[in-house]
Amino acid sequence: MKIAVLGTGRIGAMHAELIATRVAGATVAGVFDVVPDAATATAQRLNVAAFGSVADVMASDADAVAICTSTPTHVDLIVAAAEAGKAIFCEKPVSLDLEEVDRGLAAVTAAGVPLHIGFNRRFDPSHAAVRAAVAAGEVGELRQLRISSRDPEPPPIDYVKVSGGIFLDMTIHDFDMARFVTGSEVVEVYATGSVMVDPAIGAEGDLDTVTVMLTHQNGVTTTIDNCRQSAFGYDQRVEAFGSLGIVASENHTATSTIRRSAAGSTGAVVPHFFLERYIPSYVYQWEQFVAAVRDGTQTPVTGADGRAPLVIGLAAKLSAVSNQPVRIS
Amino acid sequence: MKIAVLGTGRIGAMHAELIATRVAGATVAGVFDVVPDAATATAQRLNVAAFGSVADVMASDADAVAICTSTPTHVDLIVAAAEAGKAIFCEKPVSLDLEEVDRGLAAVTAAGVPLHIGFNRRFDPSHAAVRAAVAAGEVGELRQLRISSRDPEPPPIDYVKVSGGIFLDMTIHDFDMARFVTGSEVVEVYATGSVMVDPAIGAEGDLDTVTVMLTHQNGVTTTIDNCRQSAFGYDQRVEAFGSLGIVASENHTATSTIRRSAAGSTGAVVPHFFLERYIPSYVYQWEQFVAAVRDGTQTPVTGADGRAPLVIGLAAKLSAVSNQPVRIS
Amino acid sequence: MKIAVLGTGRIGAMHAELIATRVAGATVAGVFDVVPDAATATAQRLNVAAFGSVADVMASDADAVAICTSTPTHVDLIVAAAEAGKAIFCEKPVSLDLEEVDRGLAAVTAAGVPLHIGFNRRFDPSHAAVRAAVAAGEVGELRQLRISSRDPEPPPIDYVKVSGGIFLDMTIHDFDMARFVTGSEVVEVYATGSVMVDPAIGAEGDLDTVTVMLTHQNGVTTTIDNCRQSAFGYDQRVEAFGSLGIVASENHTATSTIRRSAAGSTGAVVPHFFLERYIPSYVYQWEQFVAAVRDGTQTPVTGADGRAPLVIGLAAKLSAVSNQPVRIS
Amino acid sequence: MKIAVLGTGRIGAMHAELIATRVAGATVAGVFDVVPDAATATAQRLNVAAFGSVADVMASDADAVAICTSTPTHVDLIVAAAEAGKAIFCEKPVSLDLEEVDRGLAAVTAAGVPLHIGFNRRFDPSHAAVRAAVAAGEVGELRQLRISSRDPEPPPIDYVKVSGGIFLDMTIHDFDMARFVTGSEVVEVYATGSVMVDPAIGAEGDLDTVTVMLTHQNGVTTTIDNCRQSAFGYDQRVEAFGSLGIVASENHTATSTIRRSAAGSTGAVVPHFFLERYIPSYVYQWEQFVAAVRDGTQTPVTGADGRAPLVIGLAAKLSAVSNQPVRIS
Repeated sequence: MKIAVLGTGRIGAMHAELIATRVAGATVAGVFDVVPDAATATAQRLNVAAFGSVADVMASDADAVAICTSTPTHVDLIVAAAEAGKAIFCEKPVSLDLEEVDRGLAAVTAAGVPLHIGFNRRFDPSHAAVRAAVAAGEVGELRQLRISSRDPEPPPIDYVKVSGGIFLDMTIHDFDMARFVTGSEVVEVYATGSVMVDPAIGAEGDLDTVTVMLTHQNGVTTTIDNCRQSAFGYDQRVEAFGSLGIVASENHTATSTIRRSAAGSTGAVVPHFFLERYIPSYVYQWEQFVAAVRDGTQTPVTGADGRAPLVIGLAAKLSAVSNQPVRIS
Repeated sequence: MKIAVLGTGRIGAMHAELIATRVAGATVAGVFDVVPDAATATAQRLNVAAFGSVADVMASDADAVAICTSTPTHVDLIVAAAEAGKAIFCEKPVSLDLEEVDRGLAAVTAAGVPLHIGFNRRFDPSHAAVRAAVAAGEVGELRQLRISSRDPEPPPIDYVKVSGGIFLDMTIHDFDMARFVTGSEVVEVYATGSVMVDPAIGAEGDLDTVTVMLTHQNGVTTTIDNCRQSAFGYDQRVEAFGSLGIVASENHTATSTIRRSAAGSTGAVVPHFFLERYIPSYVYQWEQFVAAVRDGTQTPVTGADGRAPLVIGLAAKLSAVSNQPVRIS
Repeated sequence: MKIAVLGTGRIGAMHAELIATRVAGATVAGVFDVVPDAATATAQRLNVAAFGSVADVMASDADAVAICTSTPTHVDLIVAAAEAGKAIFCEKPVSLDLEEVDRGLAAVTAAGVPLHIGFNRRFDPSHAAVRAAVAAGEVGELRQLRISSRDPEPPPIDYVKVSGGIFLDMTIHDFDMARFVTGSEVVEVYATGSVMVDPAIGAEGDLDTVTVMLTHQNGVTTTIDNCRQSAFGYDQRVEAFGSLGIVASENHTATSTIRRSAAGSTGAVVPHFFLERYIPSYVYQWEQFVAAVRDGTQTPVTGADGRAPLVIGLAAKLSAVSNQPVRIS
Repeated sequence: MKIAVLGTGRIGAMHAELIATRVAGATVAGVFDVVPDAATATAQRLNVAAFGSVADVMASDADAVAICTSTPTHVDLIVAAAEAGKAIFCEKPVSLDLEEVDRGLAAVTAAGVPLHIGFNRRFDPSHAAVRAAVAAGEVGELRQLRISSRDPEPPPIDYVKVSGGIFLDMTIHDFDMARFVTGSEVVEVYATGSVMVDPAIGAEGDLDTVTVMLTHQNGVTTTIDNCRQSAFGYDQRVEAFGSLGIVASENHTATSTIRRSAAGSTGAVVPHFFLERYIPSYVYQWEQFVAAVRDGTQTPVTGADGRAPLVIGLAAKLSAVSNQPVRIS
């Protein structure tokens, strides 16, 4: 499968490299970026072509496109790729605007092309094992879910301005995880938050520390703790409690080295951020995307899976502002 | 210090035995129970006197009383003991009725006797180390607190009927822990819950699985997960997240034995319930109570500390019924 | 059962207190020490009698004696107690002289009284679970055993002089553990050691850091690491490897509190020394001793169990001196 | 740097793939195998050339060779590569014959080419952190080292026949680790072993379960536990004990997922074998080899580092046969 990569920023360049070197059965058909020099740099490093325009990409013999550009451009590219008959991999979020999401999904449906949304954490072996255990009934009847999700440092304030806010930019991953692990839709949201990390984030009307409670259709309650800053590194833990016990994914550590001294025992630090923590999940995601497109089966994260967390995120924003639980119809 | 123990049920008998055998500087002045045979049994086992009436206790030379009777009798006994000039140790909750609590506290204030409320978990070395670390600034500015608190099995339904409901009977310990660790009063409560363990609990108008979000005066958010049933044993964990990292108390295990097999590594079970898990905390609590009374210093858990969690619990009940956050004035 | 405690040094005073307060079915018949003031102090604290002489003890109605005096006095006291028909609990080692041991065991056999040697670590729940798992076949065919056993600090040099050397004083516990976990006698010993902690220990002809390899009759190899000083506290770990995996007892920790910071995760310190680490094992040992004597069953650690580690220890001394493996016939 | 890979069996094919995809600054100059089809398969998969002969490799413009062929061919290839002026990466062991090793090292010295021996475990981040901590004095004065090293399953019996025996094939990695972590040469070896996994291994005159004690020049004692079969997966642990405490590398786990049930807590399995466990170490090794050759600095594992473990291994064989400690002169 030949995959054209659109957008060669940090995440796009990573996807291109993974496809080129670590994904069996896939090659990079070429890369494109609105900044030609960025595309050229990645193209040269990987010894692949740099496309001159989106039209060139769509006219090429690429089987699939990986949309890794800025969020506002996603839907137009989805529509163009759908019309060109390409299989589509789109980074999250599809869009910050629900109508736009629906326009994109409609184009995909009309064209009948595969669409996958890049919620890579579903493919992390530790989280995936939690989902698998829940699905297999290993915790019995699921009762409560806890997600601790904290970034090591806040993004630049310029990014905060266009991010759509913490609920749509950061918690959206956790909304997806909650749906994934419980296997049940969210029917109500209660969100609260504050500015504890950086007043500049508050000045943009955003929050940096939020706690969210979700009620799922099956009665399970999910609580999510988010913070834009975590001194000990990237905090990524999911804990499912049910009638037979708990299944939880703990943080990974950089090494397995332990020190024992008069001060106690000290374990290694956790990986700093997503590139260190989640690289294997990106590889597994590509493998499953490639396999699904090749076999004509459902992509592992659908357009509906891209839409639902946005709906939850918009409800969370409303809840935080109104200090009221918000129903999702 | 001679301590008379009132009530020789499970918790009272335990207190009497601990005072008799493990608390330096304290002895059991005698025991009393409304069921004389129960008092006699404990008295004989510990080789101490059995009092014939509450009046006898109050007229005795006991320096202090340990009130371990059923909740509805607490306030009358507090008042009697205060009038008799005894130092008072009272099991939680003081009462399920806020006016009654205030009547008891008023009598204590009027008499000028020491009063301590039995929130023993504060004296557990693992939780106490969390509080100490937060107070010492080891986590920097506190941001979020998580409490997982689950009993191994629900109490008998007859107990559920008179318990005051899960928020006043079980979560009240966690409300105290939240105040203790954060060092900050609770200003708002949002509670949600369901019946997932036993429909008989629901038939009594009670819940068995609840999730509560507290907002503290200092802006910290606490989330509490409670369940009346935990297949893996007594779940007792507190996790404080702040600007410098996390301090958390994990569950204890019955042994340190680890098994490694083709199925992975398996650690020991957690202690089944509070008698196994918290015995040391009860001893430390007695030691600090005895020291405070002896030295004329403040008892470690005051009457106000007994009152506040009741207020939070009543607000949580209201929140769960109304599905609205409830302010605490 | 009335138990007279002989010797009220640190270990004897502890036994007396445990019997008085924590062992159901047993009481302290009185205490004796060659230093009368020491006996009186313990007697007053526990509100029991102080015997004036060993003869008084043997003539008393005590059912059993706990021999906690200095090692050279053990055998004479065993003989006296046997002749007096008392059940005998004797601290390890029975003697540093094999002929003396045999004299004591012969007196016990002749009198037909119960004898138990105080290898308390067998009763530690974590180590006992390792033995139980091996005995139950949970590790399959046992292949290799590892024991890490290190004291926090060396004893006073005056103690070192009369200790019999590290192999008979410290490693003897591990020789017992090796026999206990494997359930197989030792047939060969290879020992090596050095002075790395304190030259004063070397000046006494002793070692402070030793590594020992044992070959058991069943072909299993045990390696033991000993050191008289461990900066992180009392190191007490046993790891059994077999065809189905590993069962191991890890060190205990003072609390379950974990800190996560930019420096990694930090767990609590390990208990400093045996009084903190092994108190429960002493209680369980007394319970099983009392039950065995009461029921007329075999005491859990026999005279032969007291003799065998001494034989291994003497072979280890010889091996360390000769730098040759030493067979045990 | 252009690296020709000699030998495209499991390890050679892995090296070729890592160089091709994961090592910045290095490319595969081509591959060679005595079985041409094997070379062609790897060459096609990686889109590189397949050499027709060793002579072609040596005549090519490759800057370096990676010798991944069978052990008996190593020295001839080292000599040929040295004469051709290539930088040399050679898999361990250099040879099973000490004279042959010396012939190879002499050719390297004469040619002045870089030589690196593939003891990849030194580059594992967890073990490397142990070495770094010891070297930095974090454990104070080093006293005792423990290495647990067990393969998941024994190799095919045909491999056992030509392996040189467990000490030269398997323990040799641990001899290297002992030298690496202690930073001190081995002066005496005592080895013992048995056949507990498969009688067929014994029929070849080999052992499958061995325990080795090493005495280092600096007085430190290392104990090594080896077994050809480990039911719980690849056991790879190193524990350094010194005057300030312990630094240890624990086993890695496939995920961080934990299950808590009535049976206790269960962690994930350990990676099955070296390809899963040590892939990062192979990448880091290549990076350091490439950097050293590029910068003209010492390769991280020298020819002397390849020779020393062989000397220890031969002494261990002799010790196991004679049941005597063997000095290394």
